Amino acid sequence: MPRLAIHRLPMAHPGDLSALAGLMARGEVRAGDIRAVIGKTEGNGGLNDFTRGFFTQTLMLLLASQTGEEPAALAARIPCVLSGGTEGALSPHFLVFSASDEAARGERGLALGTAFSPPTPAREIGRAAQIAAVADAVRAAMADAGIARPEDVALVQVKAPAPQAPDPAARSTDAKFLMALSRAAAAVGAGVALGDIPAARATEASLLTDLSLYSNRVSISSGVEVTCNEVVVFGYAEGWAEGIVAGVAPMADLLDLAGVQAAFAAAPGEVLGVIAKGEPDRSGAIRGQRHTMLGDTDIDAQRHLRGALGAIVAAVAGDGRVFVSGGAEHQGPPGGGLVCVFARSR
Amino acid sequence: MPRLAIHRLPMAHPGDLSALAGLMARGEVRAGDIRAVIGKTEGNGGLNDFTRGFFTQTLMLLLASQTGEEPAALAARIPCVLSGGTEGALSPHFLVFSASDEAARGERGLALGTAFSPPTPAREIGRAAQIAAVADAVRAAMADAGIARPEDVALVQVKAPAPQAPDPAARSTDAKFLMALSRAAAAVGAGVALGDIPAARATEASLLTDLSLYSNRVSISSGVEVTCNEVVVFGYAEGWAEGIVAGVAPMADLLDLAGVQAAFAAAPGEVLGVIAKGEPDRSGAIRGQRHTMLGDTDIDAQRHLRGALGAIVAAVAGDGRVFVSGGAEHQGPPGGGLVCVFARSR
Amino acid sequence: MPRLAIHRLPMAHPGDLSALAGLMARGEVRAGDIRAVIGKTEGNGGLNDFTRGFFTQTLMLLLASQTGEEPAALAARIPCVLSGGTEGALSPHFLVFSASDEAARGERGLALGTAFSPPTPAREIGRAAQIAAVADAVRAAMADAGIARPEDVALVQVKAPAPQAPDPAARSTDAKFLMALSRAAAAVGAGVALGDIPAARATEASLLTDLSLYSNRVSISSGVEVTCNEVVVFGYAEGWAEGIVAGVAPMADLLDLAGVQAAFAAAPGEVLGVIAKGEPDRSGAIRGQRHTMLGDTDIDAQRHLRGALGAIVAAVAGDGRVFVSGGAEHQGPPGGGLVCVFARSR
Amino acid sequence: MPRLAIHRLPMAHPGDLSALAGLMARGEVRAGDIRAVIGKTEGNGGLNDFTRGFFTQTLMLLLASQTGEEPAALAARIPCVLSGGTEGALSPHFLVFSASDEAARGERGLALGTAFSPPTPAREIGRAAQIAAVADAVRAAMADAGIARPEDVALVQVKAPAPQAPDPAARSTDAKFLMALSRAAAAVGAGVALGDIPAARATEASLLTDLSLYSNRVSISSGVEVTCNEVVVFGYAEGWAEGIVAGVAPMADLLDLAGVQAAFAAAPGEVLGVIAKGEPDRSGAIRGQRHTMLGDTDIDAQRHLRGALGAIVAAVAGDGRVFVSGGAEHQGPPGGGLVCVFARSR
Repeated sequence: MPRLAIHRLPMAHPGDLSALAGLMARGEVRAGDIRAVIGKTEGNGGLNDFTRGFFTQTLMLLLASQTGEEPAALAARIPCVLSGGTEGALSPHFLVFSASDEAARGERGLALGTAFSPPTPAREIGRAAQIAAVADAVRAAMADAGIARPEDVALVQVKAPAPQAPDPAARSTDAKFLMALSRAAAAVGAGVALGDIPAARATEASLLTDLSLYSNRVSISSGVEVTCNEVVVFGYAEGWAEGIVAGVAPMADLLDLAGVQAAFAAAPGEVLGVIAKGEPDRSGAIRGQRHTMLGDTDIDAQRHLRGALGAIVAAVAGDGRVFVSGGAEHQGPPGGGLVCVFARSR
Repeated sequence: MPRLAIHRLPMAHPGDLSALAGLMARGEVRAGDIRAVIGKTEGNGGLNDFTRGFFTQTLMLLLASQTGEEPAALAARIPCVLSGGTEGALSPHFLVFSASDEAARGERGLALGTAFSPPTPAREIGRAAQIAAVADAVRAAMADAGIARPEDVALVQVKAPAPQAPDPAARSTDAKFLMALSRAAAAVGAGVALGDIPAARATEASLLTDLSLYSNRVSISSGVEVTCNEVVVFGYAEGWAEGIVAGVAPMADLLDLAGVQAAFAAAPGEVLGVIAKGEPDRSGAIRGQRHTMLGDTDIDAQRHLRGALGAIVAAVAGDGRVFVSGGAEHQGPPGGGLVCVFARSR
Repeated sequence: MPRLAIHRLPMAHPGDLSALAGLMARGEVRAGDIRAVIGKTEGNGGLNDFTRGFFTQTLMLLLASQTGEEPAALAARIPCVLSGGTEGALSPHFLVFSASDEAARGERGLALGTAFSPPTPAREIGRAAQIAAVADAVRAAMADAGIARPEDVALVQVKAPAPQAPDPAARSTDAKFLMALSRAAAAVGAGVALGDIPAARATEASLLTDLSLYSNRVSISSGVEVTCNEVVVFGYAEGWAEGIVAGVAPMADLLDLAGVQAAFAAAPGEVLGVIAKGEPDRSGAIRGQRHTMLGDTDIDAQRHLRGALGAIVAAVAGDGRVFVSGGAEHQGPPGGGLVCVFARSR
Repeated sequence: MPRLAIHRLPMAHPGDLSALAGLMARGEVRAGDIRAVIGKTEGNGGLNDFTRGFFTQTLMLLLASQTGEEPAALAARIPCVLSGGTEGALSPHFLVFSASDEAARGERGLALGTAFSPPTPAREIGRAAQIAAVADAVRAAMADAGIARPEDVALVQVKAPAPQAPDPAARSTDAKFLMALSRAAAAVGAGVALGDIPAARATEASLLTDLSLYSNRVSISSGVEVTCNEVVVFGYAEGWAEGIVAGVAPMADLLDLAGVQAAFAAAPGEVLGVIAKGEPDRSGAIRGQRHTMLGDTDIDAQRHLRGALGAIVAAVAGDGRVFVSGGAEHQGPPGGGLVCVFARSR
């Protein structure tokens, strides 16, 4: 019976995988059991953030040294979802999700499944093709985990591609806008697979315009370091060992402290990892008071957002090791977001 | 009998005082009653933040148009404490503190007093002379308010000077370091006046080195736009009308959510204004987890800090209008800070 | 006979007009003779750069104290074209252009004329209405100067408006894009008035798309601090005193050192002021080598551009007091720009 | 007879070594012949710039795949001197220096030698021990190249260590200041070895204080990615093939266009690579005009400097592929720097 394990590990810099190397050397994690990695590196989180690529290269080299596989083959089967930017109270860290086969009690536990979509070229980013590809990949990842019903899914985490070079056939020449479109298409595709968004409304035209379409259970990052949509699904399934719970709650807006607290309350026990998404309110105000995140020439709006959201979640957690990612288009209500807490159940 | 009033007003940009102009036009505030202004402008909060000067110039022109005084004369008697930087969830706003004479019930209420030290030239910044000058000014401001005992003081807010040009006789050639020294000297001086710091230990050598010396009731900003130490003291005094309370609590570290909540609990009622101080933990870690605020080449550490601390306090307040200022040397415990809440008592 | 004078003055900060106050106190410049001010302040040059507003407020107050007019009336007749951002080698400074009436020799000299378009609301920015309004204003400014023929114009400098608040009727919801559209419309409008751009091709659709439309004699800034198009025209006209020459040359790309040198060669003598425009090459490369200005999350592309272009022009001038402004859409060839040098002729 | 070859190669991102892989695949460069790499990556150039580590890891993996050595062994014999930050006109690129043995005419050519000092722990950075260690390493590198006399040296390039973690025994707790001290010690040590700085004056106390001590032939970077002083010496020596020349000239200040042109004039022919060092003038002014590089809270002073200096050198070269590094302490005159041009002699 597979048992999910989550290790939350520090890094001294984006190329420092020594904490994972130590775990493997001591036999606490087997390289072959690793199913996904989700982490925060200390870059700027934008187009020119290379800390994600550095980490991924180092991780795959380390795993390759253990399993004998090629780094490229490992990268093609183990999703590595990184978000750059540890502004404010946030602490660089990464979560290693592994599944070991063992005799265990329990009939139903937190399961993990993964899937990769076919490559999404620049011209398909933010189009119906990407929406459909992500929906298919989410269904494949659910099947991989043995999760029977959409309502059993706790969280879908996707790393969606951003174009590495301009392409005249793309929906936009603005690279940042394409990154947002990619997140939007992945969120909507995942929302369709979960039944949170009606398939009929999940059109190309709805992306970034009809923000009433959203799922409270999807978290998307996009970046140039991936070329397809990498999907990790968490949910409850028969045949997985008990022991870990996931609590998810939406945030109505950036200051929704009660929403953050609800996610922690829904996952009582020792916290193993926290994932949060949010965005600068497009209206330019939060609860009626003007914010300045969107018009700052010196600090990118997403860096502002991560610093603020990260601090609130970290204050509730009492711990800066929170995966916070900006760009929450169609992920939670507009101007808001979501929080997911993994805990060892008591 | 004087009655303290606090108005919390928005600004569309750092030169926008229209909200105050409107209050005065409608007779809700008399220009002659204004005793102090404390606000947050949307600059970077550093040496080259000119939003503070812009606001101050505009404010004094507006008041001068009402009272007939010269702007310079107004600036010399009304402390205008501004902190630049509305990172993340923070909202540009300013608090106008006025005291009107009226028939009122009550025997003891929240009082406000102000004082200006003599000019502190660059060579005196961060030296014993500044410590003594601020201690004297705090005592003068207490007397101005009629606050009898140090224990009746809720908060001392100081705007301390930073040198406008390099001076070879200054303690340092590093302008940022001099700004920190100025905050430290003012904090230690105020702490001595309040009895929170023993006078014998309040030496020049202790500044920025003996961080066991601190007061939980002093909040200091420094900037090039002032040339002396401008002091505002809040506390309880006989002969002031009832109706406003101030709650103050220390924060043990940046993630001390309970500390923030304690300050709000200490000032039940409709919130009129919030002041918070904090600093990036010098150890490079918060509760054992590495943070990256101090080593970021792209975002100043104080901008990181304000975004994080501001979001936590704003989440508790449910409102982004929080005065948050970085650089909490000798103001609250090292790595921590303090929160002060003004509320209309129920 | 009017004689144009140019004073290049330093500022210690964006609210420091003491150098001009000194000139006026010594009788070297009469407030009533001042026709235009063009300057560089040390902000970030973007949406949230308030150094321009601070300078303008201070300037108009100073002039009002001399002429007895209201500051608003002065601002409505004296163009004050400011560009924020003194990156790298650039030095904050401002050029004061004044015209005094005096007995002078000469039959034809450098003339200056000004004009203000009607207010351009957000919904007209980047539309045919703005193009036409700027063309009309340029013709009016030429008439004001007495410049008879378009070919006698040396340079048109325009400060074009950016919307102060979002407007659903505007061409875009992206404030930065609207700033670019405003520059584009003003450049094309001025180019039409000069005969450098055919009126038939100067359509709304051509803005930012048909970059083959450009004038080498127009320099545009846009900002929220103005609500109409403020125009200053320099050129040669009968009836103005001799003594000052203007040399203008296009830059084919950012590294066009010969172009810069040509502008200086065209205005031999003591340099009185330098104006340069340029832009980050949209192709992502300069002379075939990749640049990184457009994809940097931490430094705005225009700040990169001003630092680079400013240093090249300053190195040729041997002086950091160069007015450099980014955003050269339709001002010089794509990826390039222009340089204008004012000198006291030998 | 060894023949020095220089290849100037582009990179699409800091982990992109495909251009070098291609050269090796086509047999144009043998991995075993590579003696040093000097390059510019597109990071921020500061403490938290990880693009240097990413490039180095990728480079050593590539070379290891060719030579069969371990990456760590390669890193211990091939200096890889990287400077982060391609502000403004600069283009990410790297120079590969290789030496092949071949029958060649000529009696004396440009030679290259390398050496590594013993590890310099944090407590030795900026102390006499580092000065001596670098002087010894420069002498060793000269011997490696066969350069007989100090006056035959064209340029010494050093990558000096910065501490990876705070050390209470270090000269400072300020990591940025330690980086500057490390550059200073390396520059002074190299200057002593070249005879440009008297050994008696090369004391720990002189570092960063006696800026009259400098060499026009040393260029130093420091970074956390190295733990010892990695030295590359270029100069003329018997027994090396003719064909490449190096021209070096000091820059008196940042605007010293003639200095830049002199370096290019001293190396006529096809340019193969350019190295420049400079620094923001500590006086706060250049040729009497105030600059704002040192007091900007939003853009690091070294980023300002690289953007400005890089643009000037690139404009003379007509090419953005210039290695520009800030922090020119004791490398060229104060406020100035130096330029070195490698060219294929005609």
